[in-house]
Amino acid sequence: MISKQQISEIISKYDLDDLAIATVCSHSSLQIFDGARKEGLKTIGICVGQPPRFYDAFPKAKPDEYIVVESYADIPKIAQELVEKNAIIIPHGSFVEYMGAKNFAELPVPSFGNRAVLEWESDRDKEREWLEGAGIHMPKVVDPEKIDGPVMVKYHGAKGGRGFFVAKNYDEFKQNIDPNEKFTIQEFIVGTRYYLHFFYSPIREEGYKLSNGILEMLSMDRRVEANADEIFRLGSPRELEDAGILPTYVVTGNVPLVARESLLPHIFSLGEKVVEESLDLFGGMIGPFCLETVFTDKLEIKVFEISARIVAGTNIYTSGSPYSDLIEPDLSTGKRISQEIKLAAKLGKLEMIVS
Amino acid sequence: MISKQQISEIISKYDLDDLAIATVCSHSSLQIFDGARKEGLKTIGICVGQPPRFYDAFPKAKPDEYIVVESYADIPKIAQELVEKNAIIIPHGSFVEYMGAKNFAELPVPSFGNRAVLEWESDRDKEREWLEGAGIHMPKVVDPEKIDGPVMVKYHGAKGGRGFFVAKNYDEFKQNIDPNEKFTIQEFIVGTRYYLHFFYSPIREEGYKLSNGILEMLSMDRRVEANADEIFRLGSPRELEDAGILPTYVVTGNVPLVARESLLPHIFSLGEKVVEESLDLFGGMIGPFCLETVFTDKLEIKVFEISARIVAGTNIYTSGSPYSDLIEPDLSTGKRISQEIKLAAKLGKLEMIVS
Amino acid sequence: MISKQQISEIISKYDLDDLAIATVCSHSSLQIFDGARKEGLKTIGICVGQPPRFYDAFPKAKPDEYIVVESYADIPKIAQELVEKNAIIIPHGSFVEYMGAKNFAELPVPSFGNRAVLEWESDRDKEREWLEGAGIHMPKVVDPEKIDGPVMVKYHGAKGGRGFFVAKNYDEFKQNIDPNEKFTIQEFIVGTRYYLHFFYSPIREEGYKLSNGILEMLSMDRRVEANADEIFRLGSPRELEDAGILPTYVVTGNVPLVARESLLPHIFSLGEKVVEESLDLFGGMIGPFCLETVFTDKLEIKVFEISARIVAGTNIYTSGSPYSDLIEPDLSTGKRISQEIKLAAKLGKLEMIVS
Repeated sequence: MISKQQISEIISKYDLDDLAIATVCSHSSLQIFDGARKEGLKTIGICVGQPPRFYDAFPKAKPDEYIVVESYADIPKIAQELVEKNAIIIPHGSFVEYMGAKNFAELPVPSFGNRAVLEWESDRDKEREWLEGAGIHMPKVVDPEKIDGPVMVKYHGAKGGRGFFVAKNYDEFKQNIDPNEKFTIQEFIVGTRYYLHFFYSPIREEGYKLSNGILEMLSMDRRVEANADEIFRLGSPRELEDAGILPTYVVTGNVPLVARESLLPHIFSLGEKVVEESLDLFGGMIGPFCLETVFTDKLEIKVFEISARIVAGTNIYTSGSPYSDLIEPDLSTGKRISQEIKLAAKLGKLEMIVS
Repeated sequence: MISKQQISEIISKYDLDDLAIATVCSHSSLQIFDGARKEGLKTIGICVGQPPRFYDAFPKAKPDEYIVVESYADIPKIAQELVEKNAIIIPHGSFVEYMGAKNFAELPVPSFGNRAVLEWESDRDKEREWLEGAGIHMPKVVDPEKIDGPVMVKYHGAKGGRGFFVAKNYDEFKQNIDPNEKFTIQEFIVGTRYYLHFFYSPIREEGYKLSNGILEMLSMDRRVEANADEIFRLGSPRELEDAGILPTYVVTGNVPLVARESLLPHIFSLGEKVVEESLDLFGGMIGPFCLETVFTDKLEIKVFEISARIVAGTNIYTSGSPYSDLIEPDLSTGKRISQEIKLAAKLGKLEMIVS
Repeated sequence: MISKQQISEIISKYDLDDLAIATVCSHSSLQIFDGARKEGLKTIGICVGQPPRFYDAFPKAKPDEYIVVESYADIPKIAQELVEKNAIIIPHGSFVEYMGAKNFAELPVPSFGNRAVLEWESDRDKEREWLEGAGIHMPKVVDPEKIDGPVMVKYHGAKGGRGFFVAKNYDEFKQNIDPNEKFTIQEFIVGTRYYLHFFYSPIREEGYKLSNGILEMLSMDRRVEANADEIFRLGSPRELEDAGILPTYVVTGNVPLVARESLLPHIFSLGEKVVEESLDLFGGMIGPFCLETVFTDKLEIKVFEISARIVAGTNIYTSGSPYSDLIEPDLSTGKRISQEIKLAAKLGKLEMIVS
């Protein structure tokens, strides 16, 4: 990974009155560009081959300029150009996936957030060490031979929802497992899914205070998964299995929702624990993150995964959510990121929020 | 119940230029405080032990001051303090549940709405008398021995969704029933759930006119219930029963939706009938109320319950809904409550909307 | 169908500074009137018997005046009155259904959009010719005797969701088919449903450019269908069939959602192809249209139907959607229609967008 010092040197030469944010044109980029424009930052869209035409349909979210690469693997070649434009990269899930975590780790361009988090988030064992170390309740890990009820089998690394399946016994596990992939088996938690969109700021002072900085909860969503979310119309899992149809969990979109207000203290304590532990483990996870949870009928919250960056579920809230509206009007996660960059620049603390 | 006269005496001494609204910090309090602030009313948060920290994360919804009690049962002890602060209580579901309906009925502080409604709403038989008296179609009541199709068994009193279960025959009923609780059995209506958020104002004059005052429909939601709403991913009800897993109906949150526009005349007529009947039965249900319904494939609307106060489903609409946006921008149910209090104060009619 | 020339003659006499929009009070009329008012156009509500009272509850969406007819079949009788008021009709699904497609085709009042589309949209075979001609992937057509997996049987013409059922084999098909209706049988696509709300403008110049004019994507929704969407709570399809309960697909309302951003290029290309083909086939489909799709777990998008006018799913977005917010604030499809009419009037191009 590129060192803190190298990034500090790069950013020390940036013209703070002419900062730009840059990201790959996908995932949550419309929102990121729209938010940056609202905050008065320049925007650079990185794309393969040619600028995507659909940006023309969304003028408020169209980046000020595009940098075209031949393939995502070529992004390192434009590092110098990005630096010359005073660009700070906003990494989203597709950015990291398309480019490769290794390439991203070495990219000599300041990136919003702490790149050290990648190592903790992309390995299921380290992710568990982090979350359980924080006192978070996760679904139990199950050994393959000891499967005696529904379990979720998950491959390592983000795969846009393609990386897991449900098995109800060892036979089903054996039938479906890809032996070439690292995997983890967790108990299947029965309840309802909530994806909680947090933001950790080490520099704001007013708000829900942590040992260092503040925690915000900007919104929440539920992912729409094909074909699991509508397959019940055809038959029950067992009926469908007989017909050779298996449920799959590919994310196709997101729906908005809110949680029972009496759960907010619990929800905030989850975000708080995760951030505090990240400060201890690797210097802190900066900016947006998402806890992927199941709320049970006992009103327990089980966390099955963490995403340590902006998630696509925030795309629902281009112009604010039922929660962020209680902070200020028209506040998306994308806009919040640019606010953080602007505040850090103003306070001379950019080094604290980039890596 | 505290008498109308006692409340009138108390409120006659209020400083109308310095009114406050007060509620328990839970359920829909963020929205209630945010709405009051937008209308320029002071806000008082009642909480146990200490102010909840999560309010720090939502500055626009943080009350101006907190009154801390040792337990909700101690709320009567702060009645004098609330009165000295010219406070009007906004009762929400948790407020009444935490404090106890009896304690609430006697609390010598002006409360928004008509407390007499509690008696009609908390007893399933009186609720049915009210709704059917209004000509509303409810699911049929079924005797335990005569269960010959799917039924919903409901315990009396609000329990946050824990108070019911589905049985498909007498055996299932016997297996699951808690003999220590009062219950009602209704036929299970097959359709889709809509929770309709109304507001009855006895003092506004422009709008959908009733015999006295006007009716508004501010928004609607669907409740998210654990584990019933996602359990289909694991198996059908019969398959799960074999595995010892039963569907439960605990509300964990809410999703937004809108209804077919051609149903609006029907929807408004339901709200109208319920209000008119309440005027006859107990002097009227004032302010927000919710009809909990199922829309069938014949486009009939069956009402399975009424909540005679602000419901948590309105929390989705902090800054307005697809419906309230057609009344005025940025109109939540919380804000609407404060508007009603302000208008009543201005017209010298506070007595008409508190009890 | 009334000729282009007749309509041109009528509209050539319109007072362009005093244009009105008119529609039947149902379906998406609240939004259409609200949008027109925001754009400064007069509004006329056409209704049967008497003005619907529920409009009084939504002052911003209440039309400036009503024209009352005895039955929808009498709308031709008010054609002259509409013309005298410089009215342009906004046809929505209920408008066409209530009045009858034939009557609508002949109505001598300028109507927003191209009436020629009706012929292509209301006949399942011509619809398929259009969409497949455009290179769109539709569910395969299946012969009744060759049903060997789940299929959707659809009657011709819009019936508000009543017009179809699922069959898993020939027996189920025979059992449920109404022999008096024209029908089409399509394979049942397993995935998640998205209803994509587009807008084609032949006169705007900035945006996602087509061969002629521009394409916008204003929002998307998922329909709520009774009883199919909640019937899983009672049992699986097979379990319910045993109990004599069949899933039905009547639309009762809509929920908001967003799609994975990486699918936007695909989504726009679908809208583009459909418009380009419509230009070739019948002079173009003007204004709002909706592609009714299923997203599969391979991230393919199958289009199962097209609606060539404003759909009720846009009612969620009275004040903008996560997508239209990236065009301009507060932009509903209803408002967008009035913008198009105003722009056309200003440019002297009304003939291009009415028929």
